[in-house]
Amino acid sequence: MTVTFKHFVSADQVDNQTANELIARAEAFKAGATASYPDVYVSNLFFEPSTRTHTSFEVAEQRLGLKVISFDPTHSSVQKGETLEDTIRTLNAIGINIAVMRHPQADYYRDLMTISDTAIVNAGDGAGQHPSQMMLDLMTIHETFGHFEGLRVGIVGDISHSRVARSDAALLTQLGASVSFSGPAAWYDDSFASFGNFVGLDELLPQVDVLMLLRVQLERFDDVERESFAKADYHRQYGITEARAAQLKPEAIIMHPAPVNRDVELASALVTGPQSKIFTQMHNGVYMRMAMLEKIIQAQHNA
Amino acid sequence: MTVTFKHFVSADQVDNQTANELIARAEAFKAGATASYPDVYVSNLFFEPSTRTHTSFEVAEQRLGLKVISFDPTHSSVQKGETLEDTIRTLNAIGINIAVMRHPQADYYRDLMTISDTAIVNAGDGAGQHPSQMMLDLMTIHETFGHFEGLRVGIVGDISHSRVARSDAALLTQLGASVSFSGPAAWYDDSFASFGNFVGLDELLPQVDVLMLLRVQLERFDDVERESFAKADYHRQYGITEARAAQLKPEAIIMHPAPVNRDVELASALVTGPQSKIFTQMHNGVYMRMAMLEKIIQAQHNA
Amino acid sequence: MTVTFKHFVSADQVDNQTANELIARAEAFKAGATASYPDVYVSNLFFEPSTRTHTSFEVAEQRLGLKVISFDPTHSSVQKGETLEDTIRTLNAIGINIAVMRHPQADYYRDLMTISDTAIVNAGDGAGQHPSQMMLDLMTIHETFGHFEGLRVGIVGDISHSRVARSDAALLTQLGASVSFSGPAAWYDDSFASFGNFVGLDELLPQVDVLMLLRVQLERFDDVERESFAKADYHRQYGITEARAAQLKPEAIIMHPAPVNRDVELASALVTGPQSKIFTQMHNGVYMRMAMLEKIIQAQHNA
Repeated sequence: MTVTFKHFVSADQVDNQTANELIARAEAFKAGATASYPDVYVSNLFFEPSTRTHTSFEVAEQRLGLKVISFDPTHSSVQKGETLEDTIRTLNAIGINIAVMRHPQADYYRDLMTISDTAIVNAGDGAGQHPSQMMLDLMTIHETFGHFEGLRVGIVGDISHSRVARSDAALLTQLGASVSFSGPAAWYDDSFASFGNFVGLDELLPQVDVLMLLRVQLERFDDVERESFAKADYHRQYGITEARAAQLKPEAIIMHPAPVNRDVELASALVTGPQSKIFTQMHNGVYMRMAMLEKIIQAQHNA
Repeated sequence: MTVTFKHFVSADQVDNQTANELIARAEAFKAGATASYPDVYVSNLFFEPSTRTHTSFEVAEQRLGLKVISFDPTHSSVQKGETLEDTIRTLNAIGINIAVMRHPQADYYRDLMTISDTAIVNAGDGAGQHPSQMMLDLMTIHETFGHFEGLRVGIVGDISHSRVARSDAALLTQLGASVSFSGPAAWYDDSFASFGNFVGLDELLPQVDVLMLLRVQLERFDDVERESFAKADYHRQYGITEARAAQLKPEAIIMHPAPVNRDVELASALVTGPQSKIFTQMHNGVYMRMAMLEKIIQAQHNA
Repeated sequence: MTVTFKHFVSADQVDNQTANELIARAEAFKAGATASYPDVYVSNLFFEPSTRTHTSFEVAEQRLGLKVISFDPTHSSVQKGETLEDTIRTLNAIGINIAVMRHPQADYYRDLMTISDTAIVNAGDGAGQHPSQMMLDLMTIHETFGHFEGLRVGIVGDISHSRVARSDAALLTQLGASVSFSGPAAWYDDSFASFGNFVGLDELLPQVDVLMLLRVQLERFDDVERESFAKADYHRQYGITEARAAQLKPEAIIMHPAPVNRDVELASALVTGPQSKIFTQMHNGVYMRMAMLEKIIQAQHNA
């Protein structure tokens, strides 16, 4: 039986069946399926900058025929000291059915889920959840290989600051893939051990079907971290140089949540290379967000 | 005969008949009536931050099927020294039929009303007018009691800085309600005497059907006022504590234009309590703004 | 045969036939012709402030039924160090068919034209191109006189900083008009000689059919230029005072790209006077931008 949920805030909500349903629906949208929900009002509340996630959600919303109501946090009553709860209560009173939100505070959505009928779709909370990114990653893998069972996935880089690494690893494992981690050892810790081992980068590369690079999120570093970080050093030690990429299997794919720090995580020439799925991920993101929004809308209509 | 008006800028434009017409139309929209004006172009020019008024107008506009054209004052040619008059002339030339505006300068709209065909809808001018707030207040009272005649309305708080207190008092009196004021005596002056008396808060509470709280607008205080203002003191002396609310008649309602300063004007627990109409006011605001915009549109079509 | 082009970035793309086609189509839109392209997604990327160009494009887009996706450069990943190329690749991946862009860097579009399917429409690059302004100028002249052949056009003012002066002069000459320049001699140079002579203002005025004033772009001056600039002096020496305007032929028209610096380039009383076409230019701009966008859309559909 299909699981319904009012809000879409956490990767933990996604079991195997839900993952497969969402992927199937997103692939159908990509193949040309359409849907129209013109009575649904949505507002995108981005308290952190993001071109790609914000724009992707807005295209998804318009493709579904939703009414998109603009919201600029820098001009909002949050400046007059209004709490996030009262902002959501306000939007609910005004008739906003869905609030797509990004906010720097982890778990910001906890207190917003029971106060009104407005559904919360989490588009990123600090270093926490980012379920639509996880789902578009999974869709891209599924689209490439047709299955998850037996795939070997390597996740490389700044695991500790990543919104997505932990939830991708958990769901991929659950779907039958095996996961390994690499990158700077200091960014790995025992909390990842249940999902996969930590291995050296040159050992990892020839084995994987999917190489998931993580973004070095310099903007989340503290001052000490930022000063000690040398881009060229990172690239030489932990980045995918053209030489390292030659160790990949020919059918292996390179993924990255973007924006890429060119010549840090990945050699610039490889960003648009034949094994890169980075822009395919973005493209798929629109269709996956359509599927996720539709799931919320259907739950509301059945409520 | 129905009064038509090209612009909607001041509470003074609203006589009893217009008030009743607008309330009836807003209540019809709330009950499901629809209208569609897809050839009308509207732009929302907010030179002061406001989540709720801006969003409420935009939802109203989209429910009426208008084309909403974005306008960001911080990116506009006003930065190149363009006058407000030339901005409106420009929007008119470009085909904007209605400009919904909030601006800190009182009476900013005076010089904008004769220069072009673009209708001005005033969404707040400094400490001056805010006709859509007045009308949604009246709609909420009418919806609750079914009439105005004989109602006792208490208006409490920062009357002197309030956009709405004076116009609400004037129209309510005209419609047959009686009005009293309370709060800090320094914020009352003789100019309010023709609408109602100033009475002590504990004398007022048992008598009223409608308790209209005003927002303490700290952001409009000068430095001396702000320094001497203690939130807890205000709450104890002039705020609606839970103890004071117990003096209200059971059928009395609590209103507030929002955002509420919780535990200043009103005890936090009462904001969403059973007598509070605060979120109903916001909800009604969308339908009232639909009625107001439609009135402007019909005047344009008959011109 | 009709010339098609994927991008619309430079005045140099416009030959006589294209100019006449675009003018005819824009005049048809002004006369009531409609078109609808609801499957086309467009985003307006304004890295420099501009009320009128941004709003005009957005009205044009909505009149064509396009889906307009918001983009705020100040909240974008450009802040995370993303290149303009990667921003366009991202928008392309997300499904944006047309990016209307204004950016302070001259020729910013060169590297964006070959990297994706997203069409670039240049809405101004620094002191470089501004093809939609050129085309709406031409439309306004054509609408007034019915032809270009034999018209005398005087271009007055800050030629050296102007996006439009050079391209207007080139295309007008090509279409059979004759062009002269006036204003401060220091702002004229030999690179304009192939289009027309430099003449004194009082000699110029009685001769022209079209007086095209250029904006003094104080915001592009360096500090030395700005300090030495006196508005009243400029107006007395090179501005169109009411006395000077009396020297114009009665049927001559005054044009200006706006925003006008009142009482600098033009006496304030003349801005909305009978010979001024300044607000007509803005009005025509919407229809011309519809024609330009449609030309791009048709090229995409035929690709």
